[in-house]
Amino acid sequence: MAAVEFIKDLCTPALIIDLDKMTRNAEGMLERFHKLGVQLRPHMKTHKTLECAEIMTGGSRRCIVVSTLAEVSFYADNGYDDILYAYPLPFDKVERCAELSERLSLFHVVVDNRLALQELKKRPLKQGKVWKVWMKLDCDNGRAGVPHCDPAALQLALEIWDTSGVELMGIYAHCGNTYACQGEEQIKAVAQETTTIVLQFMEKLKAAGIQGVKSSIGSTPSCSHPVPDMAMLSEVHPGNYIFYDVQQSLIGSCTLEDVAVRVLTRVIGHYPHRNQLLVDCGWTALSHDGGGRLPTGYAIIEGHPELKLLSMTQEHGRVEPISGKLDFKQFPLGSLLKLIPYHACATAMMHPVYFVHSKGKIVDTWKPTRGW
Amino acid sequence: MAAVEFIKDLCTPALIIDLDKMTRNAEGMLERFHKLGVQLRPHMKTHKTLECAEIMTGGSRRCIVVSTLAEVSFYADNGYDDILYAYPLPFDKVERCAELSERLSLFHVVVDNRLALQELKKRPLKQGKVWKVWMKLDCDNGRAGVPHCDPAALQLALEIWDTSGVELMGIYAHCGNTYACQGEEQIKAVAQETTTIVLQFMEKLKAAGIQGVKSSIGSTPSCSHPVPDMAMLSEVHPGNYIFYDVQQSLIGSCTLEDVAVRVLTRVIGHYPHRNQLLVDCGWTALSHDGGGRLPTGYAIIEGHPELKLLSMTQEHGRVEPISGKLDFKQFPLGSLLKLIPYHACATAMMHPVYFVHSKGKIVDTWKPTRGW
Repeated sequence: MAAVEFIKDLCTPALIIDLDKMTRNAEGMLERFHKLGVQLRPHMKTHKTLECAEIMTGGSRRCIVVSTLAEVSFYADNGYDDILYAYPLPFDKVERCAELSERLSLFHVVVDNRLALQELKKRPLKQGKVWKVWMKLDCDNGRAGVPHCDPAALQLALEIWDTSGVELMGIYAHCGNTYACQGEEQIKAVAQETTTIVLQFMEKLKAAGIQGVKSSIGSTPSCSHPVPDMAMLSEVHPGNYIFYDVQQSLIGSCTLEDVAVRVLTRVIGHYPHRNQLLVDCGWTALSHDGGGRLPTGYAIIEGHPELKLLSMTQEHGRVEPISGKLDFKQFPLGSLLKLIPYHACATAMMHPVYFVHSKGKIVDTWKPTRGW
Repeated sequence: MAAVEFIKDLCTPALIIDLDKMTRNAEGMLERFHKLGVQLRPHMKTHKTLECAEIMTGGSRRCIVVSTLAEVSFYADNGYDDILYAYPLPFDKVERCAELSERLSLFHVVVDNRLALQELKKRPLKQGKVWKVWMKLDCDNGRAGVPHCDPAALQLALEIWDTSGVELMGIYAHCGNTYACQGEEQIKAVAQETTTIVLQFMEKLKAAGIQGVKSSIGSTPSCSHPVPDMAMLSEVHPGNYIFYDVQQSLIGSCTLEDVAVRVLTRVIGHYPHRNQLLVDCGWTALSHDGGGRLPTGYAIIEGHPELKLLSMTQEHGRVEPISGKLDFKQFPLGSLLKLIPYHACATAMMHPVYFVHSKGKIVDTWKPTRGW
């Protein structure tokens, strides 16, 4: 395929990223936490590219968080270090984690149970290194982590602290419960709750003689609207904010204007007998995330609030008006539409290449890593 | 990563394919249509690998159908020919289609409107070649295609027939409406309806002086339970049957025993306070397809009808019992579970590599093509 100069000439479907918006999102987050005096450890899971990582780390290529070992290897192979693998230590990957710990200056793992700690003890690191371990605390998010109100939380932290060959680096919490929020006030309430729980836990650690341990919370909603107490944390680790999406705009993390990502699609069929047109974006290009529950279906069609992406098959999307008759002349065969995705992480995951533009001019193509 | 000998040693999540079941599914379909005297043109969209294509074509490497140009290039680069691009001709891809038409012995495109035909006329093929065109007929499926009851259908066929530089190869219909069926009887009713509509249309063509044109219908349900009249068609083009899935078993295309694909996942957390365990399969490994509407959630957990995969985030899956207390001792941390996917096409799409096994022993790894 010949190199393409403008968005309008791209073959579709294509994931397009607005470099200016994306850079603004990334720099905004860096600045927000620089002012608060808190280390930003950006999450790579949304984009999984070197180029976004460069922008999100402000060029330092240090202090990132990832969700797969494939990402760790990808970033390590490209000069990144101080990488936190924010995932309950999977027993089948201990050897790969050990090798990464021996290879990098700082490779962090996460545990939320005693058996995982046993697994680490069974595989002492070579070269005088020690396992860098964060304990995951569940602050009412209800996914991974030791429940904060369970006495087992303090016990596990003490056990990690006391284990030789293992260093307790910090307490890690994901406030994914911010995703149920609507508006800044609710987001701040959850951010405050999580921060308070973590800081109280840090006090318990201190009282038990544990010093110099870090604290980290994160989620895009909470880090888009931090509460002042978050200044007392060591780190935060949001990720989705690099792109934002419709979901984040509904939660209140951002406005729809901030969303930096679109799926570019073309009209491929007119079907007046059922008042529908087809576009060349199916679930292979958008994902099923959001379940089509938006008033506009599976996405928002930019500039066309009157349209609904009502269903998708593998490579086809059905579009119809929310009400009334479709004016087909407005949407000639071959014409372009831009879909604002419900969940940018899920949509980006479907694309082997991202097309990066500034004011409609293609300036780069970025390739994410995939797999586990 | 070292080469792995057995399923139980794979890093998870991983897509595993049972070679024996898959081969049986493929050979069953070949035999079924060989007996009926109908050409099988298998669809590649479910797997997008060379190895499945080899088995599905019975080694001929000819007569396949695909849904993206990326697939056409992938198969063409690897010695395949007679490739039908079963997609309403996208205007941004006419030049790429022209190049493939000039390069391959037989490259077929699909049109369902007059403007698409105009696009073909604007780009005459070199080397004395002509465009090989199938007209898509909508036999009440309601996606692409000219509605069969619309006089425009016959008009378009006549116009293609009369256009120089273009050859009308056949009439193509996808009976995707079989996906709403429950049981063989309903499937056969839709298969019969679609067949009858297409054969009646062929009669109209004959009456209008059009001869030697092929007919093709397809979908995994209809081709798993063909009706006798399908023997009068030239071709059929199912695809999903290579793997089958939970959805196909509910439709009645197959039994759950026939499903050749699983997502292998491991238990990564026990959370007795909420009666749940976590597995390392999120939507990046399974997709959101099916919307979690099964009684067992987003998939069936093989051998554990009492369990439900109730939600997923990017890399985590939450599992709980459908009722009662979870017996955590049955599912130690690190132990394996096998998820039977709701929709194999959507699940396979999430994986950059498939692990192929025979009776639990890994015999090969296959890499699909991606993109557009």
